[in-house]
Amino acid sequence: MTGLFITFEGGDGAGKSTQAELLGAWLEGRGHEVVRTREPGGTRLGAQLRELLLHGGEEIGAVDPRAEALLYAADRAQHVAKVVRPALERNAVVVQDRYIDSSLAYQGAGRVLELDDVRRISDWAVEGLWPDLTVLLDLDPGTAAARRRSRGGTADRLEAEAAEFHTAVRDGFLALAHADPERYLVLDAARPVDELHTAILARVAPSIRL
Amino acid sequence: MTGLFITFEGGDGAGKSTQAELLGAWLEGRGHEVVRTREPGGTRLGAQLRELLLHGGEEIGAVDPRAEALLYAADRAQHVAKVVRPALERNAVVVQDRYIDSSLAYQGAGRVLELDDVRRISDWAVEGLWPDLTVLLDLDPGTAAARRRSRGGTADRLEAEAAEFHTAVRDGFLALAHADPERYLVLDAARPVDELHTAILARVAPSIRL
Repeated sequence: MTGLFITFEGGDGAGKSTQAELLGAWLEGRGHEVVRTREPGGTRLGAQLRELLLHGGEEIGAVDPRAEALLYAADRAQHVAKVVRPALERNAVVVQDRYIDSSLAYQGAGRVLELDDVRRISDWAVEGLWPDLTVLLDLDPGTAAARRRSRGGTADRLEAEAAEFHTAVRDGFLALAHADPERYLVLDAARPVDELHTAILARVAPSIRL
Repeated sequence: MTGLFITFEGGDGAGKSTQAELLGAWLEGRGHEVVRTREPGGTRLGAQLRELLLHGGEEIGAVDPRAEALLYAADRAQHVAKVVRPALERNAVVVQDRYIDSSLAYQGAGRVLELDDVRRISDWAVEGLWPDLTVLLDLDPGTAAARRRSRGGTADRLEAEAAEFHTAVRDGFLALAHADPERYLVLDAARPVDELHTAILARVAPSIRL
């Protein structure tokens, strides 16, 4: 495997998509093949699972926490097998919104499951493929909620959860970053977009000798 | 947990539904609450997953084996949490088509995954709930295929697989039964329906003191 696998993590409204787009454009400008993708929903199967998970609502009833974790893992298995691994094998840079860390922060910290179980299942799903770099865009839940409101649109199921949930998720991400500082770049997502982009480039550029 | 959990296993066309119906009717005749159910597809979420797994076809493309195993496990987690466990807790008899053994026989024996991994994930999905009795309706794949053809209807994805696959699945079921004789009742599914029903009652009746 010779490509580079970069994931963006953080709560909704932290600016993951914006920074991923900017990084992708910069890499393409330097002649790299870039695969921009996301979880859940990065494959056709995944798009259907994402729809079920985020907007199933009345139609499917309450989803058991274990079932939910397994659906995210299924989406991930399909995505890595069909999109991420083939891209890395042809030396591309994969720039992705959310990966295993999101499952750990949302399911492990926010829900009722054991973190080790969720990690073990995702690790099996992807046959041990972890990112080379994970950028955590850290934002306090109050600011993130205000951003989401200003962005408009209807709140999906996760976004509608209580503020304590978002705080638990944030703490989950920070704990993951603390435990794996080599892989993580933690940035204050309240900083201006261009400053964040520059900070990300400073970390990515030295790795780019593909 | 005080109810009784009985599962029927075997290839398509072995007569699982017929025997499950007969057993259910007998139990109801003796005054027991019976919950007749199946996997995949025993919940509203599961019905959507079953549709994806068996008839997704062109729309979702080829499903990665790990993704497939995780989707079956998700279906199972939801089904046990919402249907099976609540029924057992109120002292009902659950009579079910297919359970973990199907995943082991189809995914483990027929596909490319490690049997222990598939078992571990399903066991986690259901928090260690295994059946009190599993009836294996064993049938040679040639007879099963003829039965399915005479039944009409279109072949789903699994049914369209090659004959060697069905042989591997059958061998998988027989190996599972051999490893767990206390839980399993293995019957020759080529025998007449009423004989099979009598043989199943002979095993179930002594357990029924709910």
